[in-house]
Amino acid sequence: MAEKWVLMVTAQTPTNIAVIKYWGKRDENLILPINDSISVTLDPQHLCTTTSVAVSPAFTHDRMWLNGKEISLSGGRYQNCLRELRARASDVEDEEKGIKIAKKDWEKLHVHIASYNNFPTAAGLASSAAGFACLVFSLAKLMNVKEDHSKLSAIARQGSGSACRSLYGGFVKWIMGKEENGSDSIAVQLADEKHWGDLVIIIAVVCSRQKETSSTSGMRETVETSMLIEHRAKEVVPRRIIQMEEAIKDHDFPSFSRLACSDSNQFHAVCLDTSPPIFYMNDTSHRIISCIEKWNRFEGTPQVAYTFDAGPNAVLIAHNRNAAKLLLQRLLFYFPPQSDTDLSSYVIGDKSILEDAGVHNMKDIEALAAPPEVKDNTPAQKYKGDVSYFICTRPGKGPVLLNDETKELLNAETGLPN
Amino acid sequence: MAEKWVLMVTAQTPTNIAVIKYWGKRDENLILPINDSISVTLDPQHLCTTTSVAVSPAFTHDRMWLNGKEISLSGGRYQNCLRELRARASDVEDEEKGIKIAKKDWEKLHVHIASYNNFPTAAGLASSAAGFACLVFSLAKLMNVKEDHSKLSAIARQGSGSACRSLYGGFVKWIMGKEENGSDSIAVQLADEKHWGDLVIIIAVVCSRQKETSSTSGMRETVETSMLIEHRAKEVVPRRIIQMEEAIKDHDFPSFSRLACSDSNQFHAVCLDTSPPIFYMNDTSHRIISCIEKWNRFEGTPQVAYTFDAGPNAVLIAHNRNAAKLLLQRLLFYFPPQSDTDLSSYVIGDKSILEDAGVHNMKDIEALAAPPEVKDNTPAQKYKGDVSYFICTRPGKGPVLLNDETKELLNAETGLPN
Repeated sequence: MAEKWVLMVTAQTPTNIAVIKYWGKRDENLILPINDSISVTLDPQHLCTTTSVAVSPAFTHDRMWLNGKEISLSGGRYQNCLRELRARASDVEDEEKGIKIAKKDWEKLHVHIASYNNFPTAAGLASSAAGFACLVFSLAKLMNVKEDHSKLSAIARQGSGSACRSLYGGFVKWIMGKEENGSDSIAVQLADEKHWGDLVIIIAVVCSRQKETSSTSGMRETVETSMLIEHRAKEVVPRRIIQMEEAIKDHDFPSFSRLACSDSNQFHAVCLDTSPPIFYMNDTSHRIISCIEKWNRFEGTPQVAYTFDAGPNAVLIAHNRNAAKLLLQRLLFYFPPQSDTDLSSYVIGDKSILEDAGVHNMKDIEALAAPPEVKDNTPAQKYKGDVSYFICTRPGKGPVLLNDETKELLNAETGLPN
Repeated sequence: MAEKWVLMVTAQTPTNIAVIKYWGKRDENLILPINDSISVTLDPQHLCTTTSVAVSPAFTHDRMWLNGKEISLSGGRYQNCLRELRARASDVEDEEKGIKIAKKDWEKLHVHIASYNNFPTAAGLASSAAGFACLVFSLAKLMNVKEDHSKLSAIARQGSGSACRSLYGGFVKWIMGKEENGSDSIAVQLADEKHWGDLVIIIAVVCSRQKETSSTSGMRETVETSMLIEHRAKEVVPRRIIQMEEAIKDHDFPSFSRLACSDSNQFHAVCLDTSPPIFYMNDTSHRIISCIEKWNRFEGTPQVAYTFDAGPNAVLIAHNRNAAKLLLQRLLFYFPPQSDTDLSSYVIGDKSILEDAGVHNMKDIEALAAPPEVKDNTPAQKYKGDVSYFICTRPGKGPVLLNDETKELLNAETGLPN
């Protein structure tokens, strides 16, 4: 066996958006939450992380590249994940390449990790969730870790709390657990992505002039200073978790929407109740909420749910394709692009929704009529340029291995980024 | 006694700003709150309502003019106040004019009321608080109602909840009370305006593109839908009331500031936790908070407290004149006026603070240096035109009778507006 071999695995992992929010840890190091949370996994075709991990006796230390740039692995979160995975590694044999790695060898071997997001990291779209999930999933495959996805989720959780929910497609619950060592703080799948295939998701990436508080320090400050967070975690969320599980099981969109919107708003309320207060939503976020609330009231039954994470971007979940079409028309009416923007870069992802909406060019946006819920006597205000772009997507599948060599992010010979 | 006589009383009543907030009623008709609240009365020289009330046998029905425009008195709130006052009216004799009104005559006599705010009604500066307080105070004087201010506060409360706190100067507590008929839901003075004479108040009237939810419907929706409001009212506010009373008694500005800021933020948090959510603060409000929080942290001890009512305007309470000077410099640095604005209309009220700040003209504003808490490597962003104007004021006195005939808003002969 030549000492120059490189063994590589490449995987793709989705991001996810919580509809019952995770905010607040009871253990900062193990990342154990103060309440359960529920998320929807987003279609990796539009939002995902791809990660290649490689091992070789030629590697002198663990290294990682994120979006082509080398980053440090010295942080506790990376170290926790690597340690947990190495402890569970098994014998690996690649007969074709003539490679044999014994269980005990993993303690000495080093890995190279290259990770790439197919969406802007800075857009505040839970890139760390997809990133840590993919790191853990791909290393587990490489190291022949025989744990199931729930056990892997407990490892990914130690990288980034919400990462544990990206180990599954569809609808996922992160159970907070009771154990001090976090072994029962795991994610489980409630239903796969086909269970409620009608849902369509549109993300509004909102322009912002503020630098946002990181969610790590934000939730720590909330737990330390908010007088409302404990009541939320102990009294409000447990009931909402039960109701949300029911709503997903029954395809009950009115309940799903009511719970998702209320819980997003309550998460932002406890941020505001933090000292100093944390503002993640801005005026544009508020306007998107007002637009959805007004429309839902006008229709008598919810058409669209909204939810906002630790930033101003809106994640809008439409009941079905028709609601998504009407939603996109409204969004483009209120938030038209700057005149120098290209439509194809203003609405990305599943462009078939744009076709459904009858919008083929910039003139079609200008020609959009005011929605019927706008009263005739009050001309609708427009907010040109307040949204950077829209992503059309849907609930999606969980992590997958990629066997396509063209997707590999590390060179098969050198183990360095391609 | 000629039947053409007109008997008139003119009074002036301050507005007030809550530092522990009133939000939520347990009785909509009697206006009984779900928690105690504490306010600071603002100097009537800068913000007040002046009201003339007159009675004459020639008047055929009760009438009222607000800022020169006749308005209807048919609403329940006006009717409740008028009924309560008539029930407590006494004999009145004006020997000079040869007028005698017996207690029982008040049931048949009609009144004219003219009210005027010395600040924009639309600016969201609690005009209804000063308005109802002044209506009740002046009618009580006219009708020789012998109740003390606390009893009158329970009548003003039925016009507008926060009006009860405008019956006193200085620092005022509205006790929620326990009685079903509201008789013990009254305001009491904690300390007069001279008790803590160092405080300086600067109000930023913030530009807004939103139509705001009225506080009446807003607080009803919060009580009906928020999962956090009950915990706030029952668990959080009672402790804060005790602490705030202590802070005021001891001139403890750090505690005063911490409590006022936290309670303002919690009030807006429960608004956000309402379904549909209520947003009163906008991006400009958030930026003012961030500016104050950053400065207070930089100084190590609070210089300024902030509080926001049901709108985007900031009420900023500075520890003393020096802090007020430094505050105004910061506000004018971050929020300079539009170039076509006149400085004398951009900073109104007590202009001596402007002199302390060394700002005599628009050039002085442009020349203001970035505050030291701004890091050198991040150039401070400015938000020209986001504030309409600033009002410099201080804690002030309670209602007073005006004996100056030039201040009368009704004609002494006709009883109609001047």
